[in-house]
Amino acid sequence: MNLTLTEVFRSLESVVVVGGSPVRGKVGNVILDNILRYGFNGRVYVINPKYDSVLGLKSYKNLKELPEKPDIVVVAVPAGAVAQVVEEAASVGAKLAIVISSGFSEDERLSLQKKLENVVKSYKIRVIGPNSAGITLSSLFLHASIEVLPTRGSVGIAAQSGAVGGVIISELKKYSSGVSFFVSLGNCADVSPEEVLEYAAEDENTDALILYLEWLRDGRKFVENGLKLLSTAKPLCVIKGGVGKQSSEAVKSHTGGLTPSYEVFKAAVSKIRGYLATEIQDAVEVCELARRLKRLNPSRIIIVTNSGGLGVLAASHLDLSGFEIPRPPSKLVEALSKLGLRNAASNPLDLGGDTYIETLTDILTLRELKEYYDLAVLAYVPTAAETPEKIAKVIEEKQSSFTLPVIGYFAGEGSYEIVARISKYLPVISSSWILSRALIYMREFNRGFRS
Amino acid sequence: MNLTLTEVFRSLESVVVVGGSPVRGKVGNVILDNILRYGFNGRVYVINPKYDSVLGLKSYKNLKELPEKPDIVVVAVPAGAVAQVVEEAASVGAKLAIVISSGFSEDERLSLQKKLENVVKSYKIRVIGPNSAGITLSSLFLHASIEVLPTRGSVGIAAQSGAVGGVIISELKKYSSGVSFFVSLGNCADVSPEEVLEYAAEDENTDALILYLEWLRDGRKFVENGLKLLSTAKPLCVIKGGVGKQSSEAVKSHTGGLTPSYEVFKAAVSKIRGYLATEIQDAVEVCELARRLKRLNPSRIIIVTNSGGLGVLAASHLDLSGFEIPRPPSKLVEALSKLGLRNAASNPLDLGGDTYIETLTDILTLRELKEYYDLAVLAYVPTAAETPEKIAKVIEEKQSSFTLPVIGYFAGEGSYEIVARISKYLPVISSSWILSRALIYMREFNRGFRS
Repeated sequence: MNLTLTEVFRSLESVVVVGGSPVRGKVGNVILDNILRYGFNGRVYVINPKYDSVLGLKSYKNLKELPEKPDIVVVAVPAGAVAQVVEEAASVGAKLAIVISSGFSEDERLSLQKKLENVVKSYKIRVIGPNSAGITLSSLFLHASIEVLPTRGSVGIAAQSGAVGGVIISELKKYSSGVSFFVSLGNCADVSPEEVLEYAAEDENTDALILYLEWLRDGRKFVENGLKLLSTAKPLCVIKGGVGKQSSEAVKSHTGGLTPSYEVFKAAVSKIRGYLATEIQDAVEVCELARRLKRLNPSRIIIVTNSGGLGVLAASHLDLSGFEIPRPPSKLVEALSKLGLRNAASNPLDLGGDTYIETLTDILTLRELKEYYDLAVLAYVPTAAETPEKIAKVIEEKQSSFTLPVIGYFAGEGSYEIVARISKYLPVISSSWILSRALIYMREFNRGFRS
Repeated sequence: MNLTLTEVFRSLESVVVVGGSPVRGKVGNVILDNILRYGFNGRVYVINPKYDSVLGLKSYKNLKELPEKPDIVVVAVPAGAVAQVVEEAASVGAKLAIVISSGFSEDERLSLQKKLENVVKSYKIRVIGPNSAGITLSSLFLHASIEVLPTRGSVGIAAQSGAVGGVIISELKKYSSGVSFFVSLGNCADVSPEEVLEYAAEDENTDALILYLEWLRDGRKFVENGLKLLSTAKPLCVIKGGVGKQSSEAVKSHTGGLTPSYEVFKAAVSKIRGYLATEIQDAVEVCELARRLKRLNPSRIIIVTNSGGLGVLAASHLDLSGFEIPRPPSKLVEALSKLGLRNAASNPLDLGGDTYIETLTDILTLRELKEYYDLAVLAYVPTAAETPEKIAKVIEEKQSSFTLPVIGYFAGEGSYEIVARISKYLPVISSSWILSRALIYMREFNRGFRS
């Protein structure tokens, strides 16, 4: 029996880049450089017969010459030579080959793809790719990938497009979040999206999974493993590429796969209670909210704001999505009046454009809030009266005293800086449309988990 | 007969801030400061009996004491004193009062609102507000508003929320775009959203209109004036606040109005071929695309990309929206092969992650493109091999030779900087979902304009 992805990823102590290069910009250079910069917790080797040393490492002629068996072999050689390198890797005892090389089924070179798949069948080695942008395992400080260096975190990513994976990594950074693992699946000669679901369910460093998917090998397995992920209460956000006839054609020339019917795919994602995203942006924000406010299943929401309009927009989306936005009851109105807020009986609780962030955060610390609401949304438009630094600082100081889960919604000048500083403490969304999508998903996701 | 908004806005040579203040952060201070900073093309006065001078200007005791009749009177005094100030302004011959003061119908102080409306009925003066965040008229360099200073441009904005107006102003800046006029409508004692549509149709500095609307006084007038806007081929993007029972309640305490039924509202917007936005973000991006690519009504689209995934995502959304994504015909494939691109017969034309921006922009200059496509989408994920500066520079240099209209779609690290630099030359969108929404709108908008 071949090792599972979990078994493979658990014990990786050495990596070798076959085709590692000193030439800046070459794939074999970028990957090796990224491995060194991310600070892999193990030994790193290079194979390139053309050089004596590459990026300060001794360059070996072939795999057999290495002083130890490499656990991972990263393959960045021409497509025609890949199958043989993977075979050699298997024969020296490597557990995993990551094939970066392209020119396989995505290029209609089906025989090369087949040849690689045959190696997979004949040996115990596991293969990621071909046409992969590499992998990240943050617990091992391994970033054997051409994509941007991620922040360490607890979101798993698997993508049938390396670049989309890279975009997800970048977006997560904006929300002070990061990656537990990233697998750029490429053309899936062996490791498939279906299997990654199982790994994400089992990996204790992973809280949630974002998938960019164009096609599946085995829909039944996808649902089966998706249910395992669900049973561990880890949210799943899926971005689907290729949903019509023309774009399915495009998938064929991208990763060489055949897309399932969109209706069938939607039904499968719904069955495993995944969030089917419209775009990369909502996938990332919904994932963050669901991951960080796990088990939150609000019905009654209060919107606290310095902008009537932003508050009304949030209320509109929540309203249409079936959430309650009840007015503050008299006991809460009383508590608010003690903060100097007279007649504060509306929801959104709109305190006007001249309100300082202190006032709003003070409201969020009122213990009475807890009696009447499940969630608060802090909708804020920064004004010239306060710097983004000051707004961020106040929120940072007050957030531990908030009596309810709070979601931040900032818009306008300075909001980018505020989000960069506070998203460590406060989950945020960039639009009230995404807010409502996230809360609908969380309601659906938590169905059946209720204690 | 009272002057129309067009007549009023055409001839404004002096502005006075009643309640102008030297105290930083006070409304009367922010407005005066903004008027001075934006560099109004006329005379500026202050009235505040408490001071001899404010921000370097002589402070007068009352309107009668001014050396000339002020065209605009900005009112920033307590609500109870507003009606009298506006009456005085009318009696000295002012054309327009902008009432910043709040505490009227939005505060359930209906008698104060009524009193102001009676002044409007009895005098020739036009009134914006109360509860307004002010106005901008970029052709006059007038920014009599508490909101952020806009960039000058050709987008008109009218909003029943000053802060949402401010957010729209900020978002436009991101796309190197700006404002021809901005009217923060407040509680609409006189000037209404309906009337702004007419002004936008007539104003030669305005190319498109973005509205944030919570309620309308006169739905029929809205449609009537919307058709005038449509007849001048100016796109209209509408963000609607208050769409359900609970959020309509919220509108009452925000601007004191009653929201129309959402279905009726949708039908009205559809009749005048407006774009009904989901959020501020898509309103701004769709407006920019429709305004800058006016009369574009593409059916055949080519996607040129360095990321298979991003290309497939764009294709998916366009596919679902009924656009054609035809593969390059042989003559174009030939032309591409002369650029060194072999077998470039797919669409999205995915050139792989190691493609430099030069190659992609070279493709966009091929004259053969024009024979087979109406529009090109440049979908690009910046890589470590090129700096955002270099990418932006290449696009800037090549864009004048593009043979088709091109829309940029950038994602991932560095894309923010690229967009900041190139959106002057190239219209951009931040997601393929918004791209498809924009193109659907343009198809609808251009219905009937075809020559």
